Amino acid sequence: MTVTARTTPAHGSTATRGSNRSGVATRTALVEAARRTLVEDGFARTSARSVAARAGCSQASLFYHFDGVPDLLLAVLDEVSDRRMAAYREPLLAARTPGQLTRLARRIAAADIASGDLRVLVELVAGAPTVPGLKAQVAERIARWEELVSQAAEHFIPRPLRSTVRPAVVAHAVVAGFLGLELLRDLRDDDAGTEDVLEDLEQVGRVAGAIAGGAR
Amino acid sequence: MTVTARTTPAHGSTATRGSNRSGVATRTALVEAARRTLVEDGFARTSARSVAARAGCSQASLFYHFDGVPDLLLAVLDEVSDRRMAAYREPLLAARTPGQLTRLARRIAAADIASGDLRVLVELVAGAPTVPGLKAQVAERIARWEELVSQAAEHFIPRPLRSTVRPAVVAHAVVAGFLGLELLRDLRDDDAGTEDVLEDLEQVGRVAGAIAGGAR
Repeated sequence: MTVTARTTPAHGSTATRGSNRSGVATRTALVEAARRTLVEDGFARTSARSVAARAGCSQASLFYHFDGVPDLLLAVLDEVSDRRMAAYREPLLAARTPGQLTRLARRIAAADIASGDLRVLVELVAGAPTVPGLKAQVAERIARWEELVSQAAEHFIPRPLRSTVRPAVVAHAVVAGFLGLELLRDLRDDDAGTEDVLEDLEQVGRVAGAIAGGAR
Repeated sequence: MTVTARTTPAHGSTATRGSNRSGVATRTALVEAARRTLVEDGFARTSARSVAARAGCSQASLFYHFDGVPDLLLAVLDEVSDRRMAAYREPLLAARTPGQLTRLARRIAAADIASGDLRVLVELVAGAPTVPGLKAQVAERIARWEELVSQAAEHFIPRPLRSTVRPAVVAHAVVAGFLGLELLRDLRDDDAGTEDVLEDLEQVGRVAGAIAGGAR
């Protein structure tokens, strides 16, 4: 990462920043502050002012590290997306029975709700269309998740059925479902709706697994 | 409807309003302007100022007809909800084969996208948590839709399975799915994702119907 200060180009080195935090630490603090502001206050209230205040730094510092608020929001999305991808990619692609897959879906949803990661995704997906330039970039990140879910779904859709129940289409529906459940969870301040859906899904997965196992 | 002007209580009658539109017409114009502002500009930009400007009336007129913007937003939600309920309630409860139900789902989604009604629902569900007092009222309206979908789902879930696949839980998932699909449709400026999901769902409905018919 280049840390040349734009405001003082003649002294562009980390040593001359006169801060008790390194540039990387400030950047990390800003991303974390923006993430928490999205989770706790929502997209509309995530501004340069609110994020800088939460991070305990100046707005000038924010604009030194990021091209603007949309750029910072994308850094949050990348942080959340990379962390989730590292945690979920392997188990999702390794699932081989409907029971494993639905148990995993439940575990992922619980973790994403507890961490606020699902909230971050919903805030960015819902808010991005109001900010020029942010929309396509958020869409591109969400597409990566659909791609992963599609790969996982392929293991469960027999080849002859894949033109009727297209794995990519199932993935789109699954991602939409997760986002919609989070919208309703927030509206009701209640986890029960999401938990019930994942519980019934897991039961169906268990039954489907038993039937498939018995049919073999 | 009482039309006593709050600002001129001594002359509280429709005849003294000095407007070339009746009170009811102004109220209707404000609801329609708010609906269109939600659809075209989103929740965050739906303010007393923007709605009054679109309706061609003053902000004073808006606050005369409504207790505030949240009250106006609920009037929009009620208008959309009542109109959709009148159109969809009967066919949803009359559907008896999976093919009928999934064809109907596709028709409803297409109509709700074309009219902007689905957009209104998403904007209000996503935006309500940021406005004190609006959240519970929006949640209550959405619950009516889950109740209807739950009743429709009961016809398709055999009684012994209803503790594993609970109709109310299926309804919650379906409503979440519709909302999530609309979020993604707006993010991508592309109807294809939603259309593909409904197309595959209809194909599954047709196959399920054929199997159920054959099994009888």
